[in-house]
Amino acid sequence: MRRALLGAVLMSLALTVAAAPDTDQLRQQAKALFEPIPEEPPKLDGNPRNPAKVELGKMLYFEPRLSGSQTISCNSCHRLNMGGDDGNETSPGHQFQKGPRNSPTVLNAVFNTAQFWDGRAEDLTDQAGGPLQNPIEMASSPERVVRTLESIPEYRQRFAAAFSDDDEPVSFANTRKAIAAYESTLLTPNAPFDRFLAGDDDALSAKQKEGLQLFMGKGCRGCHSGVNLGGNNYQPFGVVEKPGAEVLPRDDKGRFKVTKSASDEYVFKVPSLRNVELTRPYFHSGKVWSLSQAVAIMGESQLGQDLSDAEVDKMVAFLESLTGEQPQVTLPTLPPSTDDTPHPSFGDAGDGKVGH
Amino acid sequence: MRRALLGAVLMSLALTVAAAPDTDQLRQQAKALFEPIPEEPPKLDGNPRNPAKVELGKMLYFEPRLSGSQTISCNSCHRLNMGGDDGNETSPGHQFQKGPRNSPTVLNAVFNTAQFWDGRAEDLTDQAGGPLQNPIEMASSPERVVRTLESIPEYRQRFAAAFSDDDEPVSFANTRKAIAAYESTLLTPNAPFDRFLAGDDDALSAKQKEGLQLFMGKGCRGCHSGVNLGGNNYQPFGVVEKPGAEVLPRDDKGRFKVTKSASDEYVFKVPSLRNVELTRPYFHSGKVWSLSQAVAIMGESQLGQDLSDAEVDKMVAFLESLTGEQPQVTLPTLPPSTDDTPHPSFGDAGDGKVGH
Repeated sequence: MRRALLGAVLMSLALTVAAAPDTDQLRQQAKALFEPIPEEPPKLDGNPRNPAKVELGKMLYFEPRLSGSQTISCNSCHRLNMGGDDGNETSPGHQFQKGPRNSPTVLNAVFNTAQFWDGRAEDLTDQAGGPLQNPIEMASSPERVVRTLESIPEYRQRFAAAFSDDDEPVSFANTRKAIAAYESTLLTPNAPFDRFLAGDDDALSAKQKEGLQLFMGKGCRGCHSGVNLGGNNYQPFGVVEKPGAEVLPRDDKGRFKVTKSASDEYVFKVPSLRNVELTRPYFHSGKVWSLSQAVAIMGESQLGQDLSDAEVDKMVAFLESLTGEQPQVTLPTLPPSTDDTPHPSFGDAGDGKVGH
Repeated sequence: MRRALLGAVLMSLALTVAAAPDTDQLRQQAKALFEPIPEEPPKLDGNPRNPAKVELGKMLYFEPRLSGSQTISCNSCHRLNMGGDDGNETSPGHQFQKGPRNSPTVLNAVFNTAQFWDGRAEDLTDQAGGPLQNPIEMASSPERVVRTLESIPEYRQRFAAAFSDDDEPVSFANTRKAIAAYESTLLTPNAPFDRFLAGDDDALSAKQKEGLQLFMGKGCRGCHSGVNLGGNNYQPFGVVEKPGAEVLPRDDKGRFKVTKSASDEYVFKVPSLRNVELTRPYFHSGKVWSLSQAVAIMGESQLGQDLSDAEVDKMVAFLESLTGEQPQVTLPTLPPSTDDTPHPSFGDAGDGKVGH
């Protein structure tokens, strides 16, 4: 009896081993498609990093006084301790108004081809100016941002140090540059998948290796490749079959709004899959709360495949191997307001007046 | 001409020296009234600290999923990098609704006699349950909080480690205890004033010493004494003369609501003056934005004195010496939600249902 049981166990182990992909071959295939997150951030065009600029950018990233109500900062919707987003379907901004799209993660965003779901900002510097001025997000204005920062002596000093060649260091353009410089440092290296790519056979479980093989074999890698497993190309949501309006709301035509080209209807930037287990809910609509369900929907809509539960399960296990080391962030102590600092404004966006 | 100028400068220096109070005497007077912020937090009745509990409390302090909308945490209104409050008149909470009173600072709050402006919570543990359930603040419920925490394996483990004697470690009571345990560690020691108390003559400028002398001599110390220079007694706002309704709204009768005693109308807990330069706007109404103006109003309403601009100026300089070392906080990395975690709820407060 016990011998029979042992035999069965050994047989099932043998089967598991037989089913597992050849690890070296798998790694070679993967290395041709994906790259690990580097330890050091890449250079930024026209925005060289220096320590003073990065530190200033960090302060501004956490600075709620950049918003009209003085309660919303970049970190409100892109929380650095929660996978770089906020876990909401779409984020409540000024007066709890909600935008149409899910907040994308800021982590590793520097590697994306462009920013926003529709790619309308060419880089992080361009992106940073958007939410600040959006009446349903931070509801401020360039003039108000500059007046706020100018009113606080420590910020004047820090802008002068960070932008020492500028005649007018405190500006909206430099605010965006400093924030982008900081954001570009927010990387999550050493994910199990990256350790596997680097040669560590044991960094992935057998199940995760099978998931990786499925991820490549089923065609997911067609859009989700490169260092971010995504973020580097645009695709229609529904290559094969459009998902229902609950997942793909028909009034958001995506990149069409940017290019006005009919072929860009319902086209979106393919999101990065880095740290995807931390960034529910999923898709630009934020309508799908389970990673398993998201994988199944992708199979149907993009690949025309009805993935089995076991296949989905393995791919989810693989996706969990994309969670890297999260940034360890010490909160910057922010300097106090002065009598010249504009008061919070809860009325119209960016009215440029001292509120209250 | 130059010699005459030099003479004038020397004479004015001599006058400054003559006007300065005797430093040793000043210190002795101050030490009889005030105490420095200690390096170590005091013990909590019925809630002994341990490292696991404090770390858990820190995570919960920064945990927006404790709120109905999953966007508001303790730190939203009590920002540890902004003097322990949020710089708003009153804080926008769930759906940007605003309460009637200014958010008090959490820093050094453990030394206060009681919590809230009206003292209705006896300690930090009691306080922590309030905003979580308030429909215009975090808009959650004990049941929802527990269900959220139970759904996340890392929280289950951390509660078990922090409350190892409990049969049911994940509870609303323990959530409050853990948050309070963390909050009790948020001290700001080594303010210039504390270094002066400890014997450092140069920790205060001559102007700050004059301000301290005025602070004691004019009677401010009658209410603002002890380790927190306040926080340890209740007083009517308007001992001598009630300020106008703009500063003291007549519909908020303060501690009267707690005790129902007529003598408690417009009585409030005297706020701590620790880090007061970081916590504008001022008073329970949050209606006064300038510290100078706040000091002048106190002179009139509480002391019946019309303080000169020079006196106000010196006292403000003294108050700035109460800014201690701010806590250096590394953001806790929060564990991801699971399929069992309630979704954000934007409807009624604490409905206990999975939202959305």
